[in-house]
Amino acid sequence: MALIVQKYGGTSVGDIERIKNVARKVKARVDQGHQLVVVLSAMAGVTNSLIALAGEISSDPDPRELDVLLTTGEQQSVALFCMAAREMGMPARSLMGFQAAILTDRMFGRARINFVETRRIHELLDKGRLVVVAGFQGVDEDTGDITTLGRGGSDTTAVALAAALRAEVCEIYTDVEGVFTTDPNVEPKARKLAQVSYEEMLEMASLGAKVLDIRSVALAAKFGVRVHVRSTFTDREGTMVIPEDHIDEKLMVSGVAYNKNEARIKVRGVPDQPGVASKLFTPISQAGIVVDVIIQNTSADGITDLTFTVPKTDYKRALELVQQVAQTIGARAVRGDTDIAKVSIIGIGMRNHSGVATKMFETLARENINIQMINTSEIKISCVIEEKYTELAVRALHEAFGLAQQNEPEAEEVSRV
Amino acid sequence: MALIVQKYGGTSVGDIERIKNVARKVKARVDQGHQLVVVLSAMAGVTNSLIALAGEISSDPDPRELDVLLTTGEQQSVALFCMAAREMGMPARSLMGFQAAILTDRMFGRARINFVETRRIHELLDKGRLVVVAGFQGVDEDTGDITTLGRGGSDTTAVALAAALRAEVCEIYTDVEGVFTTDPNVEPKARKLAQVSYEEMLEMASLGAKVLDIRSVALAAKFGVRVHVRSTFTDREGTMVIPEDHIDEKLMVSGVAYNKNEARIKVRGVPDQPGVASKLFTPISQAGIVVDVIIQNTSADGITDLTFTVPKTDYKRALELVQQVAQTIGARAVRGDTDIAKVSIIGIGMRNHSGVATKMFETLARENINIQMINTSEIKISCVIEEKYTELAVRALHEAFGLAQQNEPEAEEVSRV
Repeated sequence: MALIVQKYGGTSVGDIERIKNVARKVKARVDQGHQLVVVLSAMAGVTNSLIALAGEISSDPDPRELDVLLTTGEQQSVALFCMAAREMGMPARSLMGFQAAILTDRMFGRARINFVETRRIHELLDKGRLVVVAGFQGVDEDTGDITTLGRGGSDTTAVALAAALRAEVCEIYTDVEGVFTTDPNVEPKARKLAQVSYEEMLEMASLGAKVLDIRSVALAAKFGVRVHVRSTFTDREGTMVIPEDHIDEKLMVSGVAYNKNEARIKVRGVPDQPGVASKLFTPISQAGIVVDVIIQNTSADGITDLTFTVPKTDYKRALELVQQVAQTIGARAVRGDTDIAKVSIIGIGMRNHSGVATKMFETLARENINIQMINTSEIKISCVIEEKYTELAVRALHEAFGLAQQNEPEAEEVSRV
Repeated sequence: MALIVQKYGGTSVGDIERIKNVARKVKARVDQGHQLVVVLSAMAGVTNSLIALAGEISSDPDPRELDVLLTTGEQQSVALFCMAAREMGMPARSLMGFQAAILTDRMFGRARINFVETRRIHELLDKGRLVVVAGFQGVDEDTGDITTLGRGGSDTTAVALAAALRAEVCEIYTDVEGVFTTDPNVEPKARKLAQVSYEEMLEMASLGAKVLDIRSVALAAKFGVRVHVRSTFTDREGTMVIPEDHIDEKLMVSGVAYNKNEARIKVRGVPDQPGVASKLFTPISQAGIVVDVIIQNTSADGITDLTFTVPKTDYKRALELVQQVAQTIGARAVRGDTDIAKVSIIGIGMRNHSGVATKMFETLARENINIQMINTSEIKISCVIEEKYTELAVRALHEAFGLAQQNEPEAEEVSRV
């Protein structure tokens, strides 16, 4: 008998039939003798409808009250789920954030969990109850005000509960089958990974964010929570997100990610003096704009070039800010470019293999794709290229690093719809 | 400066425009320097939609979880209202049942308020906040489980808060203008009462229940809360529901009520022996059927007739039960009749006037309406008549007791739409 935390997303509980389906899945596990804590999101579409309703009142609704409004979505889904569970003979108890005692700070809309008081949950489990917790919500530790954890917050609720309850596993049920070696829409040969480390998952943001909220991965890493990402709509195993030293086969490269949502800004002829970079980037960070890749060329004749990327949505604002600063620091020119993409390879095995970067550059060169910027971390190499080559680059890298052929197809794959 | 509790019903907050309208009304009072606590119902239709959703899962949904589900309606309306209030420059704070500390027993779906902890509300009011409380909901004092107070429960929330906060007045805003001398759909000359006592309001159930939940009247009477029932959609005064000794003009008759929802059962030739009535009514009350008027004729030759009324919805079941008992007690016959109506006159002035009953009987006789049963209380006289004469009887009594002409029409009435 194990204690398992399960989380089902909005699509999984999108209507009454799906709620009943989830109740059946839960019952199968309960019947095996396991103790279950189920975390639910709001029914698909409900949160957006509520946001739209608030938008009819204010373009900038009171954050405290927006959280009060939005948490009703999860409250409804847990209540309906408990009714369905009871119809199937499972004595279920719903708990809101204030009842499960998910205590947070006071940052409405993006609160952080400070503490989970598990006494009540343990009491209910000991009485043989199925415990069903509203995801995404908590209460301010000091005032009892209702808070939300931000988009994807139900994943965080589940991981935090799994950590606090020392659950054997935290199962995240979603509408995809797991984490893939790359986006299957780009490369149909993309393969589901059986295991991935927290570090890889964090670096795979663009691949992983679709299946698991990034903040919940960081939380899982902090407390060593084993997370199983899998589909609500099949019984097949998904992807285990686990500590690096639990990974059976450390792949040199486990995934190819891409990101088309960045733009590049190039500042040419910058005087190569101390303090110049600071002058350039301070106004950008003060404007809340996140800079990703930064490249500075080696200086020639006391002047240099500085190139960096920002999210496309912030591109115009960033460009204006840079143009202002460029004059004061005596830079020659500012150029911008939105037709770029970032392609990355990720793998914990990289740490112990040389030549991975070379192989990446060679692969892109073979396809006549010019590399405009390069950025590396311990387990990731990113190249900025022209946007139109994105899919070509992804497929070539996926092939070059043998991601499609690494394992025999699983027997169950045959039954894939 | 006064402390005022206001409650707005579901129609009053039925859509975003109406929520904004209510916020404007509240602002007008706040601008006059008053401290306000606003209680809101769910937006019209929301509670019924949620009940329908639960009905898709179970014909008898888990009562605890049904309360969790239904309370989201009020949670949404208070959050939206606070956003609207803030847009108008009012610093508003919503409080759910668990935050306002409305502590109840554990009777899900029809919980009773045990205690209201007002500390937090007073703190917020002292800081100049507008306090907005979700109606209809509380929490079980022992477990913190969410409870609801039953249909019309937001009236009870408002009165309980007014009592606990010692508010100057509890204003109940609804879609009618107050309590009328009779149903204006039956008698267009019906007049709005400026004042009515708690006792009259309770006796006027069929007139009053449309504007004010009966349990909240009993609560108001217990704590002497002055309740002002009025329309959300005009600025005119409504009806003050107040202690009898505050009533300026004690009318002999203040209202004419009627009830078409009862049926009559007559047991003939009952042996006039001790224990017979008990044998007859015990199975009926055990079946949860509420008996209203009971009449027993004087005995002749040791046998008597027993006649009583029950709600029409329970008529068939009651008739079957009585027919079974009738055999065992040796009654001669059981007859039933659903074509009846009960017409009542209510007035605290009755206590000090004789001849009121006589006048009622004469009035009905003049219209050739036969009285089948009579029932009296200290401030009410009810007659059971043939159903088809209901409207005729109501109009005749309204006229006979001078209800339409008692006062000059108010000047504002001219502006009545």
